[in-house]
Amino acid sequence: MSCILSNIGNNLRAFRKRLGISQEHLAELAELHRTYIGAVERGEKNISAKNIEKIASVLGVEPYLLLKKKNQSSTHENDEKK
Amino acid sequence: MSCILSNIGNNLRAFRKRLGISQEHLAELAELHRTYIGAVERGEKNISAKNIEKIASVLGVEPYLLLKKKNQSSTHENDEKK
Repeated sequence: MSCILSNIGNNLRAFRKRLGISQEHLAELAELHRTYIGAVERGEKNISAKNIEKIASVLGVEPYLLLKKKNQSSTHENDEKK
Repeated sequence: MSCILSNIGNNLRAFRKRLGISQEHLAELAELHRTYIGAVERGEKNISAKNIEKIASVLGVEPYLLLKKKNQSSTHENDEKK
């Protein structure tokens, strides 16, 4: 399995949960299908750059943050809403 | 035109030139077509995550660095070979 796809999936799930929204709600906001969001979160979809941009926009993060490995993305944890 | 595609194109070109290799050579190493690399550099291709990973691997950079805006990517300039 591709490393980049699992990184994207893990980051997407983490950012979505931070916002407290469901896959369904995220899918609606990003104008994508719920099952597509689920598949991306599981690292099963070879997501395109434009969809990365769409999802990042809804999540309110820079697109590159969806690609970072966990230990590379710790610098933006300060933004986290508790 | 999508912001993410032009960021990827600009970063790809910059990293490729840093390595001093042609589009043709990069395409060979990444097992992609030369015209595809050219189109990505011009921000014309909605590149997939797996191809971002392939190209980043050949360029010797983390995939997320291909997505960063220019002013966000200054921290890795120290790695640049002069």
